[in-house]
Amino acid sequence: MSAPAFRIAELAERFGLELRGDGAQTIHGVATLAAATPAQLSFLANPHYRAQLASSAAGCVVLRAEDAPARAGACLVAADPYVAFARIAALFERTPAPAAGIHPSAVVAPGARVAPGASIGPLSVIEDGAVVEDGAVLGPQCLVGPDCTVGAQSRLVARVTLVTRVTLGRRVLVHPGAVIGADGFGLAFDRDRWLKVPQLGGVRIGDDCEIGANTTIDRGALEDTVLEEDVRLDNQIQIAHNVVIGAHTAMAGCAAVAGSTTLGRYCLIGGGAGILGHLRVADRVTIAARSLITHSISAAGEYASGVPFQNRREWRRNAARFKQLDELARRLQALEKDRKP
Amino acid sequence: MSAPAFRIAELAERFGLELRGDGAQTIHGVATLAAATPAQLSFLANPHYRAQLASSAAGCVVLRAEDAPARAGACLVAADPYVAFARIAALFERTPAPAAGIHPSAVVAPGARVAPGASIGPLSVIEDGAVVEDGAVLGPQCLVGPDCTVGAQSRLVARVTLVTRVTLGRRVLVHPGAVIGADGFGLAFDRDRWLKVPQLGGVRIGDDCEIGANTTIDRGALEDTVLEEDVRLDNQIQIAHNVVIGAHTAMAGCAAVAGSTTLGRYCLIGGGAGILGHLRVADRVTIAARSLITHSISAAGEYASGVPFQNRREWRRNAARFKQLDELARRLQALEKDRKP
Amino acid sequence: MSAPAFRIAELAERFGLELRGDGAQTIHGVATLAAATPAQLSFLANPHYRAQLASSAAGCVVLRAEDAPARAGACLVAADPYVAFARIAALFERTPAPAAGIHPSAVVAPGARVAPGASIGPLSVIEDGAVVEDGAVLGPQCLVGPDCTVGAQSRLVARVTLVTRVTLGRRVLVHPGAVIGADGFGLAFDRDRWLKVPQLGGVRIGDDCEIGANTTIDRGALEDTVLEEDVRLDNQIQIAHNVVIGAHTAMAGCAAVAGSTTLGRYCLIGGGAGILGHLRVADRVTIAARSLITHSISAAGEYASGVPFQNRREWRRNAARFKQLDELARRLQALEKDRKP
Repeated sequence: MSAPAFRIAELAERFGLELRGDGAQTIHGVATLAAATPAQLSFLANPHYRAQLASSAAGCVVLRAEDAPARAGACLVAADPYVAFARIAALFERTPAPAAGIHPSAVVAPGARVAPGASIGPLSVIEDGAVVEDGAVLGPQCLVGPDCTVGAQSRLVARVTLVTRVTLGRRVLVHPGAVIGADGFGLAFDRDRWLKVPQLGGVRIGDDCEIGANTTIDRGALEDTVLEEDVRLDNQIQIAHNVVIGAHTAMAGCAAVAGSTTLGRYCLIGGGAGILGHLRVADRVTIAARSLITHSISAAGEYASGVPFQNRREWRRNAARFKQLDELARRLQALEKDRKP
Repeated sequence: MSAPAFRIAELAERFGLELRGDGAQTIHGVATLAAATPAQLSFLANPHYRAQLASSAAGCVVLRAEDAPARAGACLVAADPYVAFARIAALFERTPAPAAGIHPSAVVAPGARVAPGASIGPLSVIEDGAVVEDGAVLGPQCLVGPDCTVGAQSRLVARVTLVTRVTLGRRVLVHPGAVIGADGFGLAFDRDRWLKVPQLGGVRIGDDCEIGANTTIDRGALEDTVLEEDVRLDNQIQIAHNVVIGAHTAMAGCAAVAGSTTLGRYCLIGGGAGILGHLRVADRVTIAARSLITHSISAAGEYASGVPFQNRREWRRNAARFKQLDELARRLQALEKDRKP
Repeated sequence: MSAPAFRIAELAERFGLELRGDGAQTIHGVATLAAATPAQLSFLANPHYRAQLASSAAGCVVLRAEDAPARAGACLVAADPYVAFARIAALFERTPAPAAGIHPSAVVAPGARVAPGASIGPLSVIEDGAVVEDGAVLGPQCLVGPDCTVGAQSRLVARVTLVTRVTLGRRVLVHPGAVIGADGFGLAFDRDRWLKVPQLGGVRIGDDCEIGANTTIDRGALEDTVLEEDVRLDNQIQIAHNVVIGAHTAMAGCAAVAGSTTLGRYCLIGGGAGILGHLRVADRVTIAARSLITHSISAAGEYASGVPFQNRREWRRNAARFKQLDELARRLQALEKDRKP
């Protein structure tokens, strides 16, 4: 496969971007402003990097109109430079498309259905009652358990586990180590010990979702756990049984949602944020990293919890006062009362 | 296998529940109050769902005596409806029992012992010195490393890793991606670099424990890491080396316990809670979600830490004041002193 | 293999430690002070365990000079007893060195290069363009993806996944379930839905690093994610794309670093700590467990955040006041103003 290369003018035309400067140069790859060579294209989206624009050796920079004057060489003007860059960068990605067919080392049960156009990698296991649709690609060491469906054009990168009753839509991308459809954590306390509550539901993942490495999504107790279309989950996220996540919501690494909570559409959940169970969170809610959400949220907006970090010695003094906070407030009230005639 | 079905009167008799209304109807499955059809059974345990009782189309509802009057159709009265429901729901679970024997694609070392009644799934690996007892079921892609034992009737759902010196009791259930018996994180700082401290202990898991997906339990440095019987761990929990967890303790997703800490029996550890190392926590301690426990706890009870979430703007103002908390307390003291004659 | 055994005098000589008492006794293993028998060696490093010294039945104890008088039997005096103990304990570790060669069940692509002295365990997959250097040991069920290199003498314990463009240095140790080189979480919001940003970088791991079970390290978007030499990561850590971690930094379980942050050398990151993206943290910074770092840190030292845990009832009262903190501070100011003449 020859390495991809495109003239700047070609990129401008293909993506409908305004070219400023000379479009004749050929671009062979993409890089950061600081690292790019004259044969590479870069971008400026985050204003923190604006200072690097003037000195960048990049052959071309994708940027906003307002940043263009500060660029000496060729540039492509975009309303959203990050989106434009993402499209251009995709031209330079070389993920070899694996051939359709089942690797001889894979174990496919007689009762499984694998479409002829699907690709099953080495040492993957497809169990009875599983379905892999056309154009789906399973890398090495994946498992598709009973009553699971991998939708058309979906990709399980490697070592993905779909346990049972999991349905992936089309073009779903799942990264290694993810476990979808394990038992929810359902326990009843029976006098002096735990009794397991059967987990009879499944998991439904909509089209165009992405699931990060080592993320876990449990199957429902009675009804399904649901991710609507275009939900994006980073690594090591935990989604408990019967959670419903609205379309286009994105969650950063290590976030967690407890059982039976419903998140709205277009939410942004920061890294390590936690959302307790049986809550409802409205559409377009943004939750700051590491915040803990303990009640339902009915209005769009930004929410946060936590306290700022400090030098440990100062922090310790302040943290100790936290334990007196109610008492301090009462003493303040007493002083106020005192003052009043 | 024909689908299971039971008359309501049959269920009442089998589980010793009081039947109210007509017991002739046949039940074919279980569902939530909102979704159940006349051919399904539901339950009411959490008072939040009481409003759904009157309108539920369920053929039968398991509930407390006090809720029975609000139910028009047949119901089964139970002291603990959730426990009774769990037992009934188990009748409708259809986990096919895999046949005993070793799948031809599994790799079993000559020095491993697998009982004839055990079932070893495709592409699992059983290493020298490992033992799999009678009735144990290993799903696909599991690993049982050297000096590991899987007790009778235990089940490794799929892709479970027992690294080394791990002993599982009877009826232990382990979900995919769990790693039990990896090296503890033992390091000595040797002048200018880290020196690894050998991890020579193992892991002992008692009867009837359950270990969630992608949970990690490290093996001990010198002595063993121990889970007593009926300990229940949700997904993505981290148990460090030499931790001891008392019988019947349950931990929700993403909780973590640092090295050499001992937790009592019947503790309830909330999701994402953290417990530092070398502590002792008494029996029947409940820790709220996301709390950080930094000292030993000697009395049963409920404990929590953290601050409430707010709209980000309000939160920011309050959080900034946290850094002045000690100073504010001192100023309050000064005012109080001033006031006194 | 016969079990290892060493006379105390032999250990003193081999590790340059001062022997006090009788060195003739043979040592067959290591144990804690409380559990050690006369045939075992123990150590005293943490002063919390000093009370156990007098009653320990250990045949030998490694300790500091100042603790030696309290020991009745033989002891070895060390400037750093934990370091000395780690070296001695390594003598008693019995990890069988697997034979070089490729297990017949492993799947090695024609375009992969495996050194003759490397060992590839059962059901591992080595893909086209991958390199495994001399003396490297891969346990069962590992995956070395395209353009990945496993350096000489490195060890992937079992079920480790190197996704793509990952380079491990020499003597790197990776525990089961770790996923290195998955896509970073790069998304651009394109009008009404997410657009994936190609992740074109790789991961470079320096010599002597250790990566814990189920830890994830994403590959870079444009440049590489980097761990310098001797970085030590515990279990379930999340390292996002383009993070750089300085040499000799250690992170405890469940810590997380967001994208493009650079950590210095010799940092100590506590369990569950979080560090936001695009920050710079200086050398020799210590961060307390569960702290959230939201800004760059330019000076060495200890940092913390969070509030102390309490009995839930007291905690609730104080936590409620947190929401009034800014208002309380203003009321205090008003009182102060009032007082002034």
